[in-house]
Amino acid sequence: MDLNADLAEGFGIWRLGDDDALLDVITSANVACGFHGGDSSTMRRVCATAAARGVAVGAQVGYRDLAGFGRRRIDYTFDDLRDDVIYQIGALDGFCRVAGKSVRYVKPHGALYNVASVDEVQAAAVVAAVRDYDRALPLLCSPGSTLAELAVGAGLNVVAEGFADRAYEPDGSLVPRSKPGAVIADPDAVVERALRLAREGTVVAIDGSVIPLRVASICLHGDTPGAAELARRIRDALTGAGTPLKPFAA
Amino acid sequence: MDLNADLAEGFGIWRLGDDDALLDVITSANVACGFHGGDSSTMRRVCATAAARGVAVGAQVGYRDLAGFGRRRIDYTFDDLRDDVIYQIGALDGFCRVAGKSVRYVKPHGALYNVASVDEVQAAAVVAAVRDYDRALPLLCSPGSTLAELAVGAGLNVVAEGFADRAYEPDGSLVPRSKPGAVIADPDAVVERALRLAREGTVVAIDGSVIPLRVASICLHGDTPGAAELARRIRDALTGAGTPLKPFAA
Amino acid sequence: MDLNADLAEGFGIWRLGDDDALLDVITSANVACGFHGGDSSTMRRVCATAAARGVAVGAQVGYRDLAGFGRRRIDYTFDDLRDDVIYQIGALDGFCRVAGKSVRYVKPHGALYNVASVDEVQAAAVVAAVRDYDRALPLLCSPGSTLAELAVGAGLNVVAEGFADRAYEPDGSLVPRSKPGAVIADPDAVVERALRLAREGTVVAIDGSVIPLRVASICLHGDTPGAAELARRIRDALTGAGTPLKPFAA
Amino acid sequence: MDLNADLAEGFGIWRLGDDDALLDVITSANVACGFHGGDSSTMRRVCATAAARGVAVGAQVGYRDLAGFGRRRIDYTFDDLRDDVIYQIGALDGFCRVAGKSVRYVKPHGALYNVASVDEVQAAAVVAAVRDYDRALPLLCSPGSTLAELAVGAGLNVVAEGFADRAYEPDGSLVPRSKPGAVIADPDAVVERALRLAREGTVVAIDGSVIPLRVASICLHGDTPGAAELARRIRDALTGAGTPLKPFAA
Repeated sequence: MDLNADLAEGFGIWRLGDDDALLDVITSANVACGFHGGDSSTMRRVCATAAARGVAVGAQVGYRDLAGFGRRRIDYTFDDLRDDVIYQIGALDGFCRVAGKSVRYVKPHGALYNVASVDEVQAAAVVAAVRDYDRALPLLCSPGSTLAELAVGAGLNVVAEGFADRAYEPDGSLVPRSKPGAVIADPDAVVERALRLAREGTVVAIDGSVIPLRVASICLHGDTPGAAELARRIRDALTGAGTPLKPFAA
Repeated sequence: MDLNADLAEGFGIWRLGDDDALLDVITSANVACGFHGGDSSTMRRVCATAAARGVAVGAQVGYRDLAGFGRRRIDYTFDDLRDDVIYQIGALDGFCRVAGKSVRYVKPHGALYNVASVDEVQAAAVVAAVRDYDRALPLLCSPGSTLAELAVGAGLNVVAEGFADRAYEPDGSLVPRSKPGAVIADPDAVVERALRLAREGTVVAIDGSVIPLRVASICLHGDTPGAAELARRIRDALTGAGTPLKPFAA
Repeated sequence: MDLNADLAEGFGIWRLGDDDALLDVITSANVACGFHGGDSSTMRRVCATAAARGVAVGAQVGYRDLAGFGRRRIDYTFDDLRDDVIYQIGALDGFCRVAGKSVRYVKPHGALYNVASVDEVQAAAVVAAVRDYDRALPLLCSPGSTLAELAVGAGLNVVAEGFADRAYEPDGSLVPRSKPGAVIADPDAVVERALRLAREGTVVAIDGSVIPLRVASICLHGDTPGAAELARRIRDALTGAGTPLKPFAA
Repeated sequence: MDLNADLAEGFGIWRLGDDDALLDVITSANVACGFHGGDSSTMRRVCATAAARGVAVGAQVGYRDLAGFGRRRIDYTFDDLRDDVIYQIGALDGFCRVAGKSVRYVKPHGALYNVASVDEVQAAAVVAAVRDYDRALPLLCSPGSTLAELAVGAGLNVVAEGFADRAYEPDGSLVPRSKPGAVIADPDAVVERALRLAREGTVVAIDGSVIPLRVASICLHGDTPGAAELARRIRDALTGAGTPLKPFAA
């Protein structure tokens, strides 16, 4: 099993999350590429530390929207979105190269993640960007999403991820954040859900039913207070249960 | 001899210069990388066309300053400038990769070009960026500049360029734009100076003396009216004189 | 009758349209405020020239999206959109103040214009911004739009505008640009439609029917080639027909 | 005596300092205007709270440089700097207006503060901006600076400020941050220096000599940990010593 989290999401003087603490625990770092967050020096530092600790680096590509942190849908054209994604992968790959590594996967951020899960134009643009840049690069996304389906159709590698701190509908989709119970706040419950995801490939849906959810990576939200501590508890629980962590893209 | 010019310097809806016409004439394209100009789709298009026409692509790296078009000195720290340069090279390399090529050289833009010609901190930051990214990448810059000297000292390849439309002091430095006669406006004179640079490795300085100026590339300003036409005249004159054009970094 | 056009839409080194020529013809200038286009010095210059020529200045407020020129829908929250609109009105009002004037009206730009014509959240945010800033400021928008309706409901002044170079559906809505015939290219036809709008308050819809369209201002697109010449023809035709031009907000 | 501090310096998702806590203690808020920090919604909120608590709002104008937080010198032209300053004052004035108030003073931020203290071109541009916008607006700056001198020469009101947590040279200039002892870290010492500034108009210079420093406002750095607590201690000490706090521009 792999643990992934969003990193390098500060910008200039502004910090967000504890990159260094998370890099001690996770196995895959979704590194912001400068469009929704992430300045050059932060990207370089995180790539260097990730390389030193054996953490795989993925391009966390987002909308060009610092003021909105990439969390507002933008109606990009296909071409502009494809090219903005290529730009971001390339920029991050430069810092990976400086660290003696390369970008190992791509994961959309924020509103782009959500929109590409359901919107064919934007999903296709992300797929085209990855295919144009390097068709061997896996896309990390939700199983069953439009993005996952189009990527598979285009011959790309898809790595499915699940969320230990988010509630699921019985059909396997995420409960929208606007609905009560969408986010699991209790750390014990989150750890238990992570264990279930890793060992059984299932999740308890919001109606109590147990549904299959086969994922190769568990996503942790790095910008919540106590994120690194929670990540460590999950890591310890999985290791203790005989499910050691390692990057899906070593 | 090589002819280089600045390209891809539009941004979004705004255009600057005639990229397509210049790509028919020049042999090396200094492609803007998004910080002083250059959006993703323009970068992609120029890299694709350059690849198709055998034009080498270089990273025209600049300050992060769209409003000032990279023409205002910014007092970057060493680390921030080095990392902003790496970011830009990487981003452009992504589009070169999509076009089946790679970035072939690096040339600073605007105020960064001028500052790195005399300022040790900024010159060293540009050198460090190129060395970190790929020590085989040549730096295209003015002979005798601080940037050229530090690059040579760091073991990098330096390619010297000259300006056919700019006046030189007897010591080989450029006449500042603020002084009368700094820019040569007469196309016939520009063509003649290009010929002299290519065939004799000399230039007539502003005081009438003939001084040596050994360069491997001649820089054309692409944002002046008639730039493509002037470029063609220079190309024809050089070719007619038995000095065919080809990229210095093929 | 009033003639309005978008101005000050360059940014830094990049120019768009011929502000100076248009300011000789139009009576109301929709001045870009820096979010989709428009830098400080251009805003200042246009406000000064408008003041000298008796042209009313309105705030052409847009999304924060230089790369997309404000032409891509962004899913702002209500609060963020309201506050970004206030910010832009205030910034422009500063330059009007320096010119001895003040902002005389507000008109959304590009995608915000289109979205606020049909979307209640974004229309309400624009209305709230104008109401908070100065409830006496008119909103210039399409008659029958959601923006117009919410503005009237909030007690704001609404000034209706029509397009002489755009086709209308029989119900008075604009034919979408994606459909054939949406844009009227023939200058003679555009002038005739402007005359009909001004003198009869009607327009010939795309199916040939004549429909009422009562507007106090005609919008010209300033970024098309020949815009200033076309504007002058419309001005001359209206003046010749006894319909002199003057700002709706003097 | 007046206490001023920098506020509203977050941007989008990123926060900096505790605006709300400081607004309980200070009497003048230097509100960031969006160029080095400060988004629309933060500006609005801070202006509203300041109005409710009787805190005067000043425009903390800076370079257009989010990535560098306005802390890197930029070689603006006179015109561009003057107009960027006017733009920022106007934008903030919009939010003051919404709160039933107006901008009460102007204070440059970061590198602009430092550069305008010694550079005639940039100081003159700030002076021209304030004079053009509203010649009654005071400039808050260091006594003896080039900015203060040019402002007085232009007939503007200048309000002198001092720093209780910074060391001074015997000639009344600040000890550069690069030198040891430049920043006073001990809270007791800072409070004592504030008292001395307020009651005696003097400061103990770094060589131990007591020098005159007549100021109408004491500047607190809001982005240091414990800033609000330190501000409260200073406020209490001054009040206890019979020097109540009130805005210099009520």
